[in-house]
Amino acid sequence: MLEERIRNAAVRARVTDADEVQAWIRDGMTVGVSGFTKSGDAKAVLKALVRRVERTGERLRIRLLSGASLGEVDGLLAAHDLVDLRSPYQGDATLRRIINGGEVGYIDQHLSEMAEWVRAGWWGEIDLAIIEAAAITEDGGIIPTTSVGNSPVFVERAKRVIVEINPDIPAEFEGLHDIYLPEQRPNRGPIPLVDVGDRIGTPYIPCPPEKIAAVVVSQERDTPSNLTRPDEETEQMAGYILEFLQHEVRRGRLPAGFGPLQSGVGSVANAVLAGLKSAPVRDLEVYTEVMQDAVFELLDAGVVRAASSCSFTLSESMRQHVLANFRDYKDRVVLRPQEISNHPEVVRRLGVIAINAALEVDVYGNVNSTHVQGTHMMNGLGGSGDFARQAALSIFVTKSIAKEGRISCVVPFVAHVDHTEHDVDVLVTERGLVDLRGLPPRARAKAIVDHLAHPDYRDALRDYVRRASARGGNTPHLLEEAFGWHVRYRETGDMRPRVAMLAD
Amino acid sequence: MLEERIRNAAVRARVTDADEVQAWIRDGMTVGVSGFTKSGDAKAVLKALVRRVERTGERLRIRLLSGASLGEVDGLLAAHDLVDLRSPYQGDATLRRIINGGEVGYIDQHLSEMAEWVRAGWWGEIDLAIIEAAAITEDGGIIPTTSVGNSPVFVERAKRVIVEINPDIPAEFEGLHDIYLPEQRPNRGPIPLVDVGDRIGTPYIPCPPEKIAAVVVSQERDTPSNLTRPDEETEQMAGYILEFLQHEVRRGRLPAGFGPLQSGVGSVANAVLAGLKSAPVRDLEVYTEVMQDAVFELLDAGVVRAASSCSFTLSESMRQHVLANFRDYKDRVVLRPQEISNHPEVVRRLGVIAINAALEVDVYGNVNSTHVQGTHMMNGLGGSGDFARQAALSIFVTKSIAKEGRISCVVPFVAHVDHTEHDVDVLVTERGLVDLRGLPPRARAKAIVDHLAHPDYRDALRDYVRRASARGGNTPHLLEEAFGWHVRYRETGDMRPRVAMLAD
Repeated sequence: MLEERIRNAAVRARVTDADEVQAWIRDGMTVGVSGFTKSGDAKAVLKALVRRVERTGERLRIRLLSGASLGEVDGLLAAHDLVDLRSPYQGDATLRRIINGGEVGYIDQHLSEMAEWVRAGWWGEIDLAIIEAAAITEDGGIIPTTSVGNSPVFVERAKRVIVEINPDIPAEFEGLHDIYLPEQRPNRGPIPLVDVGDRIGTPYIPCPPEKIAAVVVSQERDTPSNLTRPDEETEQMAGYILEFLQHEVRRGRLPAGFGPLQSGVGSVANAVLAGLKSAPVRDLEVYTEVMQDAVFELLDAGVVRAASSCSFTLSESMRQHVLANFRDYKDRVVLRPQEISNHPEVVRRLGVIAINAALEVDVYGNVNSTHVQGTHMMNGLGGSGDFARQAALSIFVTKSIAKEGRISCVVPFVAHVDHTEHDVDVLVTERGLVDLRGLPPRARAKAIVDHLAHPDYRDALRDYVRRASARGGNTPHLLEEAFGWHVRYRETGDMRPRVAMLAD
Repeated sequence: MLEERIRNAAVRARVTDADEVQAWIRDGMTVGVSGFTKSGDAKAVLKALVRRVERTGERLRIRLLSGASLGEVDGLLAAHDLVDLRSPYQGDATLRRIINGGEVGYIDQHLSEMAEWVRAGWWGEIDLAIIEAAAITEDGGIIPTTSVGNSPVFVERAKRVIVEINPDIPAEFEGLHDIYLPEQRPNRGPIPLVDVGDRIGTPYIPCPPEKIAAVVVSQERDTPSNLTRPDEETEQMAGYILEFLQHEVRRGRLPAGFGPLQSGVGSVANAVLAGLKSAPVRDLEVYTEVMQDAVFELLDAGVVRAASSCSFTLSESMRQHVLANFRDYKDRVVLRPQEISNHPEVVRRLGVIAINAALEVDVYGNVNSTHVQGTHMMNGLGGSGDFARQAALSIFVTKSIAKEGRISCVVPFVAHVDHTEHDVDVLVTERGLVDLRGLPPRARAKAIVDHLAHPDYRDALRDYVRRASARGGNTPHLLEEAFGWHVRYRETGDMRPRVAMLAD
């Protein structure tokens, strides 16, 4: 096996044990690892590090950079206080708790931009890159596994590279990836990608063999994604979006294939895509950062013709299906570095239709994607900003209420702004869909309140907008009340207006 | 003269009078006009329209789309209630007043995106395009004057085109402009611009001669810009920025020429650029949306080698200087459509250093560029979002206080978010400069409060951050107090904390 998976003899001689190589990780290091939404992440060496500190009781903290969220490793490292700084995305409950406690510095960031910041030296040098791989070529080229993430830039910039070879990944993964790194400025040219399926780079991450300081063989599995099944309301939202896209095609404002689809990570986004399965559409394209289960279902159904992303993030059953039938998919899917899968240049050129989830929206269409009550980080911005700003059509979805109605997801003023009204063309809740394009703020407010808010909150929102508008402004607000709903929720556990306010 | 300026005989036969052609403008029309930051705007026909309604007392309102702000015409139209909807930018006191009164719908918008929205049919068809021009070629090609703005897309999409030939613009302006329109998606390729001075299009706006329905000869002048002279504090800020850029070069994080400079519109941005005049730098490049006086001073001084923008916006004396000496500048400057001057693809590729002005910033580095007290529109977002998001380095500047100290420009929570913390790398006030790159939110807050806030407000900001942090969160806030400073200013005319609060 090793001869096939590690084709360079000098590199093969550096196969060692995760428990050996973890010793290279020292306090204060900056470590860049593979991994994007729990896929293709470096697992063995970091788990060995956890075992070491469990054994020795040693105090040690690293700056941990990745593509996006890691699997269980994010939680293990957090639980053992091994992380000083984390970027650019995470989704682990333990890590989230200590981030919100202020014990770990978390830099949330547009995913396409991380590679630029690494190149620009934001965190100085990368001491170590740890990359999960399917194979290493004769020339040291690293074939990634189920994600590409920021691995190419980490490999390029790291002092030393450790590779975790995972023989459970089919050898056919070679050829799945398309690794392209923009040139160093000021000598950078256009990214020559003009079609979702284009291949513009190499099928491996280039790496001088001598830079691969150690190789570990690991059969650790990706942590499966835990999508919840679509409920009635997410299916309604998916239906509205499909109806709207078809309406735009009929009006001649979208091509018959809509444009390449991007869909955020999570259950709602997955359900929206899955909703296309029964639609009378064929040969769609997907240009997104993560292919969840739904994309493979759409490939199976012939609804999607080609899909580009940075990662597969799959349930356990879909993972098994995809790995077992990988040859059927290989010429229809491509995995790219997140710098390219999310690149504003490409997103704008292709005319991507972006569909992302919001935590809450306000009456003018600003979106909070990340911060509960404006303060506590959930996961992170991810690629939503990369896509929403440059999309031909930027759609955000949220249910109108949460916590059995105690929270309205349509509020007077979002308590954290991730996307401004300028980047939000269409909003969807289970109550309806509004097309906000070409509407000034006061008209946006009317559309959002009338068509998207839950009836329990509609009157109070109307009352807010009416009184604010009377005071004037292009974007009327009553700043003394703007966060009143969030404050009330904090104090009482319920955003719903009190009787006294209704009588106001 | 007419033979030289209107080289197509059939078009020349359509020369008429502004008072004739204004009659084409009818209630409810969508009119796209040339003009960007008071330069190269259509003047004669719209002024004739104003004369008509003054004469007839007629009620008439149009949807007025442009490149950016018009000169005095914006105010004249507003004063006569001729505007129903305005986009994407304005800067006129009268228009601003009625926008904030809710009488005119104003759609503030990233300037690079307007052409996409016109193409996508946001406002349906463009009934009329009115374009100021230096000349019309044999084939109907329209040579713009001191700005390009959105004129190419308006000409492409309008049912009829009216051209205002301005013979006061030197004939040598032919060759100054580079008109490139991205292809219609899904068949769009890369924008082949890799150097600030590249010419990738035609020197005229292509237009079938038969589409030019009328030509008016007009000697109306651009409304001069009214820059205030740099004061001590703007000069301090310029000094900090120059020092910082030189520091980055020494650290190897910026090339010796920094990267192409973008600078927002207005006195502060102009002063920052002017501050480079005495610096030991040569051969810089400018890639920006507006060339103000300072860019020409830097060209004169040899500090700037090449400059690309969408518009010249000049004081009257600089206007005369540039027009009289235009041959000296012609091979060093180029004017492009705003879609290209501000295009995210190009901004990211070139590694632009973006310098934009803020109205207020908050402790985490979010920026309000547009809304006084979060509600009342000043001018608009302009190109700040196009540049800040994709820049290699995004710098925002503001004085630490306004209104003799009654307003702090560093606040707990900005009352309107135009740029999120993710798009703000460096912040500058007259108190100092902070490099926020690679810092998590709590560390950003400490740096901003310690180094940028005015001493009169520093303790109160520290107190806010301290108490918020104790409550937890990745981005700690006390939502019940977050807008307290704005509310206090509204009620008392002063943001400064009361004695009671200091004793808290």
